[in-house]
Amino acid sequence: MATKIYAELMDHVKQTQALSQIAGLLEWDQEVMMPADGAPARAEQAAALEAVSHERRTDPRIGDWLSALEQVELNAAQSANIKLIRRTYERSSRIPGKLAEELARVTARAQGIWAKARAANRFEDFAPELTRIIELKREEATCLAHDGVSGYDALLEGFEPGMTVAVLQPLLEDMRPRLSALREKIAVSKVTQPHLQGPFDTGNQMELARKLADVVGYNWQAGRLDLSVHPFSSGTAGDSRITTRVDDTEPLGCLYSTIHELGHALYEQGMPSAHAFTPVGQHVSMGVHESQSRLWENQIARSRPFCAWFFPHFKAAFGDCGVDNADDLYRAVNRVETGFIRTESDEVHYNLHVLLRFELERELIVGDLDVVDLESEWNRRFGRDFGVAVPDAASGVLQDVHWSVGLFGYFPTYSLGNIYAGQLHALLRANQADLDGKLEQGKTGDILNWLRDGIHQQGSLYGPQQLIEKVVGEPVSSEPLLDYLEAKYGELFEL
Amino acid sequence: MATKIYAELMDHVKQTQALSQIAGLLEWDQEVMMPADGAPARAEQAAALEAVSHERRTDPRIGDWLSALEQVELNAAQSANIKLIRRTYERSSRIPGKLAEELARVTARAQGIWAKARAANRFEDFAPELTRIIELKREEATCLAHDGVSGYDALLEGFEPGMTVAVLQPLLEDMRPRLSALREKIAVSKVTQPHLQGPFDTGNQMELARKLADVVGYNWQAGRLDLSVHPFSSGTAGDSRITTRVDDTEPLGCLYSTIHELGHALYEQGMPSAHAFTPVGQHVSMGVHESQSRLWENQIARSRPFCAWFFPHFKAAFGDCGVDNADDLYRAVNRVETGFIRTESDEVHYNLHVLLRFELERELIVGDLDVVDLESEWNRRFGRDFGVAVPDAASGVLQDVHWSVGLFGYFPTYSLGNIYAGQLHALLRANQADLDGKLEQGKTGDILNWLRDGIHQQGSLYGPQQLIEKVVGEPVSSEPLLDYLEAKYGELFEL
Repeated sequence: MATKIYAELMDHVKQTQALSQIAGLLEWDQEVMMPADGAPARAEQAAALEAVSHERRTDPRIGDWLSALEQVELNAAQSANIKLIRRTYERSSRIPGKLAEELARVTARAQGIWAKARAANRFEDFAPELTRIIELKREEATCLAHDGVSGYDALLEGFEPGMTVAVLQPLLEDMRPRLSALREKIAVSKVTQPHLQGPFDTGNQMELARKLADVVGYNWQAGRLDLSVHPFSSGTAGDSRITTRVDDTEPLGCLYSTIHELGHALYEQGMPSAHAFTPVGQHVSMGVHESQSRLWENQIARSRPFCAWFFPHFKAAFGDCGVDNADDLYRAVNRVETGFIRTESDEVHYNLHVLLRFELERELIVGDLDVVDLESEWNRRFGRDFGVAVPDAASGVLQDVHWSVGLFGYFPTYSLGNIYAGQLHALLRANQADLDGKLEQGKTGDILNWLRDGIHQQGSLYGPQQLIEKVVGEPVSSEPLLDYLEAKYGELFEL
Repeated sequence: MATKIYAELMDHVKQTQALSQIAGLLEWDQEVMMPADGAPARAEQAAALEAVSHERRTDPRIGDWLSALEQVELNAAQSANIKLIRRTYERSSRIPGKLAEELARVTARAQGIWAKARAANRFEDFAPELTRIIELKREEATCLAHDGVSGYDALLEGFEPGMTVAVLQPLLEDMRPRLSALREKIAVSKVTQPHLQGPFDTGNQMELARKLADVVGYNWQAGRLDLSVHPFSSGTAGDSRITTRVDDTEPLGCLYSTIHELGHALYEQGMPSAHAFTPVGQHVSMGVHESQSRLWENQIARSRPFCAWFFPHFKAAFGDCGVDNADDLYRAVNRVETGFIRTESDEVHYNLHVLLRFELERELIVGDLDVVDLESEWNRRFGRDFGVAVPDAASGVLQDVHWSVGLFGYFPTYSLGNIYAGQLHALLRANQADLDGKLEQGKTGDILNWLRDGIHQQGSLYGPQQLIEKVVGEPVSSEPLLDYLEAKYGELFEL
């Protein structure tokens, strides 16, 4: 009987999961393939799909099935599925259909208004939209509150299950002193940094991007690489697509965006196929997802031995361009500069950008900060953290798309991903003999296998923090990341 | 009150239409973009989408809304919408969910088995699947029977509303004597036909294909051109995509497939935007759709004046390749040969291919022909119609994908489209001053405007036959098509 109920529930969940995959494809197509005039119909398609999906996610039969199954003994994967379905079901059911619809409508419109405001450099054009979005997100947080979880925490757990501000804030804030000290020391270092000199053929950039995909073990039978304005990854195990961008004045944006997205895609390609379409077979959190992209992008592809492998390919693609040997390339891909844009920032500055957003968005959601004061507060705190004045809204408060699409609680998972990556990397170095020798030859198979076993194949069998702690054998901590950054950049800048 | 009910019904229908557009995008992506390993998940996605769509199409509230609205006075477009929604609702409701699911499952599987059987040239590998499909289609026809419409007619009206075998069979069969006589005369003509000599750069083929899209007025803001194994068109007004194929030994396949698909896409791009997402705003039938693709492909792009415009572009793309002037090109694009493959056949032979399928599939559905005898019957009748022996199953009974995906009743709409195109072309020639002079300059705007007004902008306000009769002022007839073919090929082959 339990078997039959479990099968019925899984049939339902499988279909819902399939619909959610379709939603992902609609977005991919919109960013990569759709002609301009397709936008109005695409909005209707996305809304219609969300309407039927919401109906399915909140189908009261799910509650009945769960109640029955919570009384019986199940294996580990089944139990995990039941818990995960319960969580999604309750979370979905807490949000009234009208609120979900209104959020979808407002954020669909706001995204375009944000893009125009950014182009015009006028925060005031976007402020009314953001005010409305924050009202709705506060309402959503109120609806989502449960078991002592409320406010910002209720939004956060949608991206990083089990994480709370009480744990996350000290974890992230404790990084600030060492990161600030490091950036200040680098700023006065006498070491000169190489400059790349273009132009850089865009066809060769894409060819090199494909070579990077080959070298990290990306399965082309289960993915593809295309161009989009902002690089992203999309899809699931059998169809895990990535995008990149090309700029003929600067090749590293294309190449390292590609590796970053490859890290995400390798995670999806490694999901346990036995649990496809069930919650256990999905990625466990945005933080763990980001740990995979950042590990490949930074600890691996920005390492000295990887640059030794990469240099001849880079040289073959671009000829004389200001880097004459592997060490030059290593220094070029690890330039450190105080910049305004998070997505373009180096490993040293990146988490300070995230801390700023984390702090501001928490205050916006709990009501300690009003949108009318947001731009001046952004600029004031940016000066505090980075020692430079923000020149305009596009380089400041308007730079990220996240808030315009209603993503509150998402930013801190970027830093959490870096922290997880730091821990995984430390263990990888401890466990893998001759890692550098293999990287110098472009051999990354052992790294991928290790991530497959420890992280990818686990799907959502454990919670995100539990998974990391299980793999590294220690509590979540930023120490390994900070140790790595200080050692690497200390050596690079002769500190 | 009626206004409110009408709005509710339209909201529902709009969402259903949006879901159906998504289904189209899934297919486009599968043929054009999807990596190989994405296939299993894509099948689940398509099935899940079909399940929720079927639920929506058969929602009993539709019946209530319709009953209320059928009692009140509505404008012409609203009345047409009500009639069309009633038809779709009843048609969908007549098919049990289980049968729809089983058909989806069996045909999804059969498509792959057909492809393998065709590659292996073994009809017997596909025969069991086809047998099962025909059983299910017979069952479907039985379920769909209503108001004296039954059997094959019930399947046919899914593609060509209002059409019946009683009307269609004589209409198509009456073409046979004149078509056969024409092909026999051409076969013994002493006129030599030019041969194109390659290779033909595939990049230049695609560039020329884009030029063709420009010249017919395709809106690139609302479409795109990609490659696929079999060319097709897909999408709706704001996002109407086409595909083509390239072969460096032969450029006309690419170029004329492109024009064919452009004809379909122009029809979709011309749909009345005021009625987007409602039945009145959709194409009226597969026959009318095909009339648009065939008119552009044949009567326009295979005409002498169009070839006069086309020749310098063709020459610039491919250099010396066996056509030295516009007349050579005109003869090259109008070669007539007895071949085995419908999709590659010329204007003279094309409808004879369709007649063969129409005759066989009618007999299969009504039970006059069994699958076990199908291959031998195909070969026997092909010899009867074309005077040559079919060499193998891939060139015969296995050549078309249609039956493997359950398309019975679809084939005759190809010939109906040719007949409609013949009538539209005759009127176009009568109405448009200096049509040839404009075509020689690549000016097709007047043709497109005329089709926009008469056909595209009408959407589904009238039934397909009514629409054609309204535009041409005469009953549906194959006379104009046959007159055109005899005149054109009589002159070409000095008959």
